[in-house]
Amino acid sequence: MNTQKKIAIIGIGLMGGSLALRLRAENLCTEIIGVDNNHQHLQIALDQKIIDSGASLGDAIEAADVIIIAIPVDQTIAILPTILNRVNKQIVLDLGSTKSTILDAIEKHPKRERFIGTHPMWGTEKSGPGSVIRDAFINRAVVLCNHNDSNPEVFVWVKKMYETIGMRIVYMNALEHDLHVAYISHVSHITSFALANTILEKEKEETAIFDLASGGFESTVRLAKSSPSMWAPIFIHNKANVLDVLDEHITQLQKFQQAIAGANEDELMVLMNKANQIKKIIP
Amino acid sequence: MNTQKKIAIIGIGLMGGSLALRLRAENLCTEIIGVDNNHQHLQIALDQKIIDSGASLGDAIEAADVIIIAIPVDQTIAILPTILNRVNKQIVLDLGSTKSTILDAIEKHPKRERFIGTHPMWGTEKSGPGSVIRDAFINRAVVLCNHNDSNPEVFVWVKKMYETIGMRIVYMNALEHDLHVAYISHVSHITSFALANTILEKEKEETAIFDLASGGFESTVRLAKSSPSMWAPIFIHNKANVLDVLDEHITQLQKFQQAIAGANEDELMVLMNKANQIKKIIP
Repeated sequence: MNTQKKIAIIGIGLMGGSLALRLRAENLCTEIIGVDNNHQHLQIALDQKIIDSGASLGDAIEAADVIIIAIPVDQTIAILPTILNRVNKQIVLDLGSTKSTILDAIEKHPKRERFIGTHPMWGTEKSGPGSVIRDAFINRAVVLCNHNDSNPEVFVWVKKMYETIGMRIVYMNALEHDLHVAYISHVSHITSFALANTILEKEKEETAIFDLASGGFESTVRLAKSSPSMWAPIFIHNKANVLDVLDEHITQLQKFQQAIAGANEDELMVLMNKANQIKKIIP
Repeated sequence: MNTQKKIAIIGIGLMGGSLALRLRAENLCTEIIGVDNNHQHLQIALDQKIIDSGASLGDAIEAADVIIIAIPVDQTIAILPTILNRVNKQIVLDLGSTKSTILDAIEKHPKRERFIGTHPMWGTEKSGPGSVIRDAFINRAVVLCNHNDSNPEVFVWVKKMYETIGMRIVYMNALEHDLHVAYISHVSHITSFALANTILEKEKEETAIFDLASGGFESTVRLAKSSPSMWAPIFIHNKANVLDVLDEHITQLQKFQQAIAGANEDELMVLMNKANQIKKIIP
């Protein structure tokens, strides 16, 4: 198999840009074409040699062997049928954080098999091509969703691509994926955004926060710096799962609330000893 | 001023043990005496040369110039009047995460002025002398509470001690301190404990979590590994402030809940753009 391809990346932000660097580092591409509505981002990507050239979406689709969609999930759904309309032998994949609504949107598309939905479990709270990270993705999981609906050639190349950049392949159907990521990613982000708002709402003496903040606070609130335009569609596209987990999370907070209000140290110990079991999962 | 003292540390865990290492590194002590009810911890501290000797509480008080209390806040309140009963010219300080209940407990004590309540804003989710960190405390804030109630000699030495190990001094009264730490430390811990319980409660396929967890999740849930016996008394001793902040936090989560339930992307953008302002405070 010829693994080197001409690759178009739609959206040269943190994800698309970091992936471009890894593809080049692992010799997976002959050329990288960037597509981005944000001309400033495109220029940064060119200046920093993250991409070889910029192009319009139409020209990029025509020129490329592989088209990687690295834009927010709502924009992916808007653009994906148009891309599939124009492809012939190209491989198309996305990197989005939800999968069901994307796959539903192209379920009956005649070129459905040219696409594979993927979710590399890597990111930071930053965004844009100025935030790219050179050694991203390594040792993280990537989920390939409903891969039996993709042409074997598409599946095999994309699997090889992720393995080559150092990722562990995990197979899930889109429904399972969306449930699991609600727990281990989406609700973490909501708690962090909400914690930041709690502090900004109630704590007026900002210098006091700044002076006292230690590592624990910084790590809990770090995700609150994440991109709103990326996360708003994720929460809405994974609404049912996110609401379910959020409801459980509020219930768990209320258990702490009741135990503290009753000065019930025994109950607090039970709640925290249970929480400590997360060590077995995330050492 | 002779800054070198014979120092007794009550509780050779993460905080007391890490402080012992810094005191020695900065030549602030002639000798460190460890006191700990946990004989295994005391032995580890001796083996790793964190302390020079172990002693009973009574012997340590008698032998030391400075007594540092590094145990949970409820135990500090239980032991502090006994310690002050026995001191004469010694300097006594604690490192606890709440200050009002501790200072209230000794308000009328005849030796009140030998004590200063402090809170170095450093820690990790680990505990015990096996978790000590060599370069702890550096570049973090330490709060000195109600220092005008302490003898100037006590205040000056303790201030010098913290400055020498690289900390920024912040002055607050105990009420202010307890309010601020509810925001920037205590509620972060509760959200993290509750998030861990949310996942452990709802997500039965633990291997799926393990496979998919990325950096964001790990940082949000890290504090859930913290010591229950340290945190239960903190939440109870700072009950009014913690409940107030927790109530606000649940309100903020419910705003996300409502916006997601209504698929209200505009409102989600408003909420997250507001949360992004935390960047100005914690860059």
